[in-house]
Amino acid sequence: MIHMAESSNNLRSVEVCFTPKLFSEIATRENFIVVLADILRATTSICAAFANGVKNIIPVATLEEAKEMKNKGFLVASEQDGKKLDFADFGNSAFNFSKEAVSCKTLVYFTTNGTRALDIARSAEKIAIGAFVNLTALTRWLVAENKNVVILCSGWKNKFCLEDALFAGALTRCLLDTSGFETKCDSAQASLDLWKVAQPDLLAYIEKAAHRHRLKKLGLDDIIPYSFILDSTRVVPVFEGTEIRNVV
Amino acid sequence: MIHMAESSNNLRSVEVCFTPKLFSEIATRENFIVVLADILRATTSICAAFANGVKNIIPVATLEEAKEMKNKGFLVASEQDGKKLDFADFGNSAFNFSKEAVSCKTLVYFTTNGTRALDIARSAEKIAIGAFVNLTALTRWLVAENKNVVILCSGWKNKFCLEDALFAGALTRCLLDTSGFETKCDSAQASLDLWKVAQPDLLAYIEKAAHRHRLKKLGLDDIIPYSFILDSTRVVPVFEGTEIRNVV
Repeated sequence: MIHMAESSNNLRSVEVCFTPKLFSEIATRENFIVVLADILRATTSICAAFANGVKNIIPVATLEEAKEMKNKGFLVASEQDGKKLDFADFGNSAFNFSKEAVSCKTLVYFTTNGTRALDIARSAEKIAIGAFVNLTALTRWLVAENKNVVILCSGWKNKFCLEDALFAGALTRCLLDTSGFETKCDSAQASLDLWKVAQPDLLAYIEKAAHRHRLKKLGLDDIIPYSFILDSTRVVPVFEGTEIRNVV
Repeated sequence: MIHMAESSNNLRSVEVCFTPKLFSEIATRENFIVVLADILRATTSICAAFANGVKNIIPVATLEEAKEMKNKGFLVASEQDGKKLDFADFGNSAFNFSKEAVSCKTLVYFTTNGTRALDIARSAEKIAIGAFVNLTALTRWLVAENKNVVILCSGWKNKFCLEDALFAGALTRCLLDTSGFETKCDSAQASLDLWKVAQPDLLAYIEKAAHRHRLKKLGLDDIIPYSFILDSTRVVPVFEGTEIRNVV
C-alpha cells in the first residue's frame, strides 16, 4: 500500500476522518495533532464556554463518571441522544455556557458523540477542539505547532455527518491556503468540495443535514445559526492529560 | 434515535455507505437491495465481463479459495493491492475480459476490496453490481424491483474513496429523479453534491483521487477513461446464492 500521508517536500499532511469508527484506518501515523469536530454540539459549545471564561473542562466518557463528578460537587454538562440528562446542571447547548454560569469554573462534560471521539483520539500528541466559531484562531495555532493534522469528525453514532464534514473542508481549505500543508486524502478532497458548495449559504445548505432535523424534533435547533458563524471566538481549547484548556 | 430510513409517504429510501466498515451502521433494516460499487476495479470489470458474454461469476473472499478453484480448472481473475497474482489467468482490469476470453465461461473472481465488500453485504435480499458503465440499466432494474436501496462503496482498505462516492451520487441522482425514492442520509446528500461538482468533467475531477495515483504507479491506469463512460453496457449483474448472473 502506498502510504498516503507521505510528505514529498516538507509540507505537512492534512487528513480527514469522517467518523470515529474509521480512526484506526488513518494513514497519518506520527507527529500529528487531532482536531476534533462535533459542530452541532460538543466542539462549538466547548469554544463558547472558553470564550465565556470557563477555567477548564473535564470530559468524561461515560454517564456513570458524569454522575459521580456531579456528586463530588462539580458543575456538570451532560446530554445523551441530544437531550439534557436530569441530574446535570446543563445540556450541551452553547447557549447554556454564559459568562454568569461558567466564568472561572471547572466544568465536567459528557456527550454522546463528542467525548467518545475524544477518547478514541488519545493516540495523538494533542487533541484540539475545532468549530466554525474558532476556525481562524485554530488555523493560526496549527500553523505554529508544526505538526501533521488529522481532522476527526465526531459524526452521529459512527455515521458520516454533513455538518462535521463541512467544517473539515473549511479547515482543510484554511490550512492549504497557508502553503504549509498538502493533502493526499480522498476524504479531505471531498470535504473541500462540499465546503465550496456550501460556503455561499451555509445555513441554507445545512437544511439538508439529518442532524439538523434531529435537533429540530427535540426543539434544540435554536443553536444552529450560532454554530455556523465563523470566528465569533478566538479560543483554541486543547485536550491534554485529563482536561481541556484554552492554549491561546 | 430517529430512524433515518423511515418512509413517510410510500417513497423508497436510498442510503449511501462510504466503506464496508460502516455497513453495520446503516439505518435501512429491511426490504433492501445493496448496490455494490468498486469503480476502479471489480464492479466495472464485472459489468464488462457480462457485456462480453461471461456465463456467471463466482466471487471468492480469500486468496486460498481462488487458488483452490484454479486447481479445479476454473478460469480465475485475481488481484491483490491492485496487482495480478501469479497463479491467476487474469488481473481484474475490465480490458482482460474480452469476448474471446470469457464468452460463455464461468469466471472465479477474487479482489482485495470488491469481494470483501460483497461478503459483508450478504444480509441484503439481493446484491447488485453497480458502475458508471451500467448506470441506466441498473436504475431501471432498481425501480422495477420495488425495494429500498443501500449503495455500498467498496472504498480502499476500509477508507472513503472519491470514485465510489461519485458513483453513489450519480445513482442516487438517477433514483431520486424517478420520483419513487427519497433520502434522509447525509452520505447520500454529500454524494449528490460531489457528483454535481464532478459531472461536467469526470476525468479531470478524478485526477484528485488517491486510487487514481495508486493505479498510475502500478501502470494500471489505462482503465480509467473506460470506467467513467456512462452506460457503455446494459447489464445488471446480481449476486444470489454463490454466484453473480446478469438478470436483464
